[in-house]
Amino acid sequence: MAEVRSTADRAEVHAVGKEAAVATAPVWSVDPRTGKPREQVAQEATAEEVDLAVRGAHAARAALADRTTRAALLRRAADLLDGASEYVIEAADAETALGPVRLTGELARTTAQLRAFAEVVDEGAFLDVYIDHVDAERTPPWPDLRRYKVPLGVVAVYSASNFPLAFSVPGGDTASALAAGCPVVVKAHPDHPATSELCASVLRRAAAEVGLDENVITLVHGFDAGVELIRHPLVTAAGFTGSVRGGRALFDAAATRPTPIPFHGELGSLNPVVVTEAAAAERAEQIGTGLAGSMSLGVGQFCTKPGFVLAPAGEPGDRLLKTLTAAVSETEPGVMLDHRMRDAFVAGVAERAALPGVDAPITPGAGGEHTVSAGFLTLPAALLAAEGPHDLLLEECFGPVTVVARYTSADEVTGVLSRLPGNLTATLQIAEEEGTGALPGGAELLAALTPLAGRVLVNGWPTGVAVAPAQQHGGPYPATTSTSTSVGTTAIERWLRPVSYQSTPEALLPPELRDDNPLDVPRRVDGRREN
Amino acid sequence: MAEVRSTADRAEVHAVGKEAAVATAPVWSVDPRTGKPREQVAQEATAEEVDLAVRGAHAARAALADRTTRAALLRRAADLLDGASEYVIEAADAETALGPVRLTGELARTTAQLRAFAEVVDEGAFLDVYIDHVDAERTPPWPDLRRYKVPLGVVAVYSASNFPLAFSVPGGDTASALAAGCPVVVKAHPDHPATSELCASVLRRAAAEVGLDENVITLVHGFDAGVELIRHPLVTAAGFTGSVRGGRALFDAAATRPTPIPFHGELGSLNPVVVTEAAAAERAEQIGTGLAGSMSLGVGQFCTKPGFVLAPAGEPGDRLLKTLTAAVSETEPGVMLDHRMRDAFVAGVAERAALPGVDAPITPGAGGEHTVSAGFLTLPAALLAAEGPHDLLLEECFGPVTVVARYTSADEVTGVLSRLPGNLTATLQIAEEEGTGALPGGAELLAALTPLAGRVLVNGWPTGVAVAPAQQHGGPYPATTSTSTSVGTTAIERWLRPVSYQSTPEALLPPELRDDNPLDVPRRVDGRREN
Repeated sequence: MAEVRSTADRAEVHAVGKEAAVATAPVWSVDPRTGKPREQVAQEATAEEVDLAVRGAHAARAALADRTTRAALLRRAADLLDGASEYVIEAADAETALGPVRLTGELARTTAQLRAFAEVVDEGAFLDVYIDHVDAERTPPWPDLRRYKVPLGVVAVYSASNFPLAFSVPGGDTASALAAGCPVVVKAHPDHPATSELCASVLRRAAAEVGLDENVITLVHGFDAGVELIRHPLVTAAGFTGSVRGGRALFDAAATRPTPIPFHGELGSLNPVVVTEAAAAERAEQIGTGLAGSMSLGVGQFCTKPGFVLAPAGEPGDRLLKTLTAAVSETEPGVMLDHRMRDAFVAGVAERAALPGVDAPITPGAGGEHTVSAGFLTLPAALLAAEGPHDLLLEECFGPVTVVARYTSADEVTGVLSRLPGNLTATLQIAEEEGTGALPGGAELLAALTPLAGRVLVNGWPTGVAVAPAQQHGGPYPATTSTSTSVGTTAIERWLRPVSYQSTPEALLPPELRDDNPLDVPRRVDGRREN
Repeated sequence: MAEVRSTADRAEVHAVGKEAAVATAPVWSVDPRTGKPREQVAQEATAEEVDLAVRGAHAARAALADRTTRAALLRRAADLLDGASEYVIEAADAETALGPVRLTGELARTTAQLRAFAEVVDEGAFLDVYIDHVDAERTPPWPDLRRYKVPLGVVAVYSASNFPLAFSVPGGDTASALAAGCPVVVKAHPDHPATSELCASVLRRAAAEVGLDENVITLVHGFDAGVELIRHPLVTAAGFTGSVRGGRALFDAAATRPTPIPFHGELGSLNPVVVTEAAAAERAEQIGTGLAGSMSLGVGQFCTKPGFVLAPAGEPGDRLLKTLTAAVSETEPGVMLDHRMRDAFVAGVAERAALPGVDAPITPGAGGEHTVSAGFLTLPAALLAAEGPHDLLLEECFGPVTVVARYTSADEVTGVLSRLPGNLTATLQIAEEEGTGALPGGAELLAALTPLAGRVLVNGWPTGVAVAPAQQHGGPYPATTSTSTSVGTTAIERWLRPVSYQSTPEALLPPELRDDNPLDVPRRVDGRREN
């Protein structure tokens, strides 16, 4: 299915831009369990092909204006993906080694997300409708004003390595952009091109089945294609999930365009954890085991992996580390998403472990020819009090490793927290009496963690991001380049802008703004809430 | 009052950074009616003074956390400004020549805006509270999640030349940032430094009177100080109203920081007007008179001035131009905000009028030693069909001039519209029967104008921006560098970011997120709206 689409598109491109045809690199699907190529999936897109994809998406945007059709598209896409689950999970596992259990869960999450956005579209609260009728009593008088939000236009989506479904072609960025009424051009991640092609073809089929132009969603491959995409004049916004380096380069390209566009990137996150003395005294073993599970889950390849822990010096902290050591040493070596990442992990760990004062109770590293093993590093928190070589420990290291800094005073905790960059999550491990307020300090620690992250957890672990309306997956830079990303209902806001209509006759207004509210959307009319 | 504050601050700076003291330029208040300096108001701020201002604001941010106090600050500021109206209007008129009538209206608008944001703060809908309780039935189960929006931190505000009050120190950017809980450092516009000092001292007094640290609002002067400000690590966002050139330079500085920050700039806008043939046939004279009034209002110094008009060729269009000519020729010469602007206007008009095919039925230009006279240019719309030297006519020319392009077909209208940059407003002049749908075309034209602007008007004029909840003052680049600016309730959203709390004990949660909703804010709880 994927090949057919690709060939058809290519034929069209050649018809359009024959003279400009350029030989591009083939795109291979690679097995991370062996490092060996599986099959050639496509070619990297040329500049002409990117242009064709964007123009096709732009031309398809009017078809997305109808909210009923958009909701149908999202639900149909979810149904078709569920129907193709066997093939999708097989392709994704072959390319990512994430395993069928995890991928089954990820697909369920992905289709739930598509359906959740269909509900958001149906309800229409995201349109943020305000109506103020003429008010002649005001000085100066108010004219009739009616505001709602309109889609920005074509959205570029850069998919993630570590979530081939939920943060890739059919993921939150795509779902929220389509929900907003924006056509999407996805730049596939090179770690799972076959899965990307398969998912794109499913989404395009869903579009066709609900009567939409299938160019509301298109896929391109290749690094250069990604750069062309962000620079294309008809692209109006972008979503990205990946590294600080790659994300920042694309952010810079978006900001330096003649017409700059918003770039919503999820880049890197340390996800600090603070364990209070009382918490360690209360349940050192439980915290140690929980930490081991969260930092090694999915071979440490979650953007929410707890990568930095402030744990107390002294006996309870020692017990925590003892349990952590035991639990981590029982972790099986795992296959990372690709060999480049594996090499970066091994090198990153070695560089960190070599810093003075850093110990490695269990050295994480190469666990075999194609695998890595989990581990952790420890150091006195005092070494992080001021700028220096140890700042490397405050940067994300992708893979199954965490850094435990041992503190001896509350001031040391405050000092290190003030030096941390922005994060997706920040976690507080406190004792029961700190949570009830019977022991002081809990509220202050929560207040100290809030400026650091988009999600703050108490006595839980940050891996696992529930797709709930109150969810928020974002945080200060470099966690994100904007305030929020692709999970939760705030995701749709990124692809919209407000427009007010002044003194516009009823007959010309969009139905959402007409007095009789024929589509029954929630609104604020003359200051009062309707629905 | 202004001098006292300035001296006190300066003493503190010298104590802090004595060795680094640098001689900076004096800041003069200038009378635009004569071009002569009135008084020295301050010195331009040094890098050390900017740092001091930002650190002072940063330290004051905790004091702004209480919403009741924030609302009190906004109301007290409005009351004090109203109480000082005589002095404020006198200072503003002396520096801007905008006249007491206009400035009385602008002050009323400014204080109304401060009070409107106090209501927004009291109500709390902007907090966007979502609560999802534990849901064990989900796969995977949902933890307890509670989300609201928190202030970003210190906001930098760059004030406008043409609104010394409503878009300057006490204007919409400041009001919305304080409403969001963000302390503000304002960079004064050099056209009205004395008014800026006076307003800043009033705002600081209001802060002190409601028990807040007065550093929640600080003022700095000077171009270099403005650049220092946008680069300061503790500045988290910026609002700007000004030129494309200045705004883009600051946008670039914001985007290239190690930690990039959002920059909400209102830059330049052409504010196109489309007059249908039927509209011209129905009321050519009324449209001509209305256009003359709107384009020359305030000496053409509104960001919403209609600077480009598509009018039909033929007899009804001729009648429109005849009335426009008559009305514009009756306009008195006016004083612009400063002599640099006057020179730029005269040069800009001359450059445009010299283009082949461009006529100037009334040449706008220097109307006297210190004044300018209104006028307009005409050309066939066909000259704008493709890229070329006439594209200069599609750029804003600040001052009392508009460009009337005469079209001969609907295709010409569509073609020119497709070449326009983003705008704050777009206006449609249609006949009554086009508004009722009895004649076709109205809805299509409205749809064609919507992508071009943040506000679309029918049979009105874009100058005059009502401060109503449904208002929206923004639009695609270069009208703004983001989707919305400082007018209307969307303004507050720019200074906030969402944070979710996961599994957090009631005793530690902010009151807005507790189950019993002690502050009675509107919320979504388990999908249902509360309040």
